Amino acid sequence: MKSKEKPLILVTNDDGITAPGVRALIKMMNEIGEVYVVAPDSPQSGMGHAITINSTLFCEKIKIDDGPQSDREWACSGTPVDCVKLAITRILPRRPDLCVSGINHGSNSSINVIYSGTMSAAVEAGIEGVPAIGFSLCDFSYSADFFAAEEQIKKIVRESIDKQMPKGMVLNVNIPKLPKNEIKGIKVCRQAKAVWVEDYDERKDPRGRTYYWLTGKFENRDKGEDTDERALEEGHISVVPIQYDMTAHHYIAQMNNWDL
Amino acid sequence: MKSKEKPLILVTNDDGITAPGVRALIKMMNEIGEVYVVAPDSPQSGMGHAITINSTLFCEKIKIDDGPQSDREWACSGTPVDCVKLAITRILPRRPDLCVSGINHGSNSSINVIYSGTMSAAVEAGIEGVPAIGFSLCDFSYSADFFAAEEQIKKIVRESIDKQMPKGMVLNVNIPKLPKNEIKGIKVCRQAKAVWVEDYDERKDPRGRTYYWLTGKFENRDKGEDTDERALEEGHISVVPIQYDMTAHHYIAQMNNWDL
Repeated sequence: MKSKEKPLILVTNDDGITAPGVRALIKMMNEIGEVYVVAPDSPQSGMGHAITINSTLFCEKIKIDDGPQSDREWACSGTPVDCVKLAITRILPRRPDLCVSGINHGSNSSINVIYSGTMSAAVEAGIEGVPAIGFSLCDFSYSADFFAAEEQIKKIVRESIDKQMPKGMVLNVNIPKLPKNEIKGIKVCRQAKAVWVEDYDERKDPRGRTYYWLTGKFENRDKGEDTDERALEEGHISVVPIQYDMTAHHYIAQMNNWDL
Repeated sequence: MKSKEKPLILVTNDDGITAPGVRALIKMMNEIGEVYVVAPDSPQSGMGHAITINSTLFCEKIKIDDGPQSDREWACSGTPVDCVKLAITRILPRRPDLCVSGINHGSNSSINVIYSGTMSAAVEAGIEGVPAIGFSLCDFSYSADFFAAEEQIKKIVRESIDKQMPKGMVLNVNIPKLPKNEIKGIKVCRQAKAVWVEDYDERKDPRGRTYYWLTGKFENRDKGEDTDERALEEGHISVVPIQYDMTAHHYIAQMNNWDL
């Protein structure tokens, strides 16, 4: 990026292109860069890193509001990861300087990063060599206040540009459900070792077949003081830098005593 | 697991419960443990870590062959991750001692681990505290020889049990497309830093709307000698131990000079 040029920012999400969370993020990003939006045409929560390989993708220009990005928005029939791939490969005039995903309706802290379409879109940008940030608000309500953390969201984005966050680096940002004046600030953390303790609600359909709804409760068993869960509990915005080398390097040496 | 008891092995995959790859794996696992199969009722390739949260899941007993596991098989309408969650929470009589996923029709080496339904099923088992192994054969053909590496597959599974692979540890095993006598052995490696260079095949539907098919070619830019790609190129079976803390720990300290 030349220093005088406005950064090209790709905005996407997993709740769909009309969700209030992404509309709020677009508004904020318009103050920082030249915004392009390529986002799913329908909700894609829980899609993780799914991609569309066995069917076709549609991706059509759509005009939603009168913002400066209004003629640079596309609705895509695929997953959040599809949106990022298609945007970078086919839609954008050049490689984006940054990809931002969200603001998700609901938390993507700790292990949720792996199930989240919002974060998978950001990780995909990272894999493609584009710095990326996923934003999530710990409030599932459609009418949640996505602007309570506006100043901090813009600060994180501006710092990532000013400090030249390296290619491939991805941030997972979670915002507590608090009024603006009660948000305590921003904390850089690690992913907590928390899990979902699942259950399934078992029902019978009108023909007598058993079916299930996924339910479950979130349990944080990680008492560390440097985790995203702790930061959120204390009223901070959590920022976890993310990578996608899944190798358990410490276990490679241990496997030398296996008889393989 | 009591030492005299047969281990309870959960088998799943992403190509669907009738795919030749999973049928081969079931046959091999019957020699080692008490096999339960909970696998998708249709192909789920590329589903990554997707879960079904906004719709219902069906999971029905199915009899496919006359093997010793024939009355312990269920076909599930969801993703590979759904299968593992449902199996552990609802279907199995007790927690499995091991989860094996595959044998996938096609490679899941290097970055493919993140898109793969096969590996996401294994990773989900890991998250739930069950040791897990995903197997993939670098051959997309429906009639590929899934038994060429039978001895090595059974060896890896037996060693993981004998050496008490810790809860939560997951192995990503890839098998080169070679005849039995040309497979050189097993190599423990790290995930190569390889990527997909995508493209999209652009077409018009009968109504004139543009649609896309994902295409692309795999590029290994990682010349390290300790990678899974290198092992496979040399004719070895690659084994990468996998973890799912996505934190980029090295970057946390660097972010201290950000103005947040």
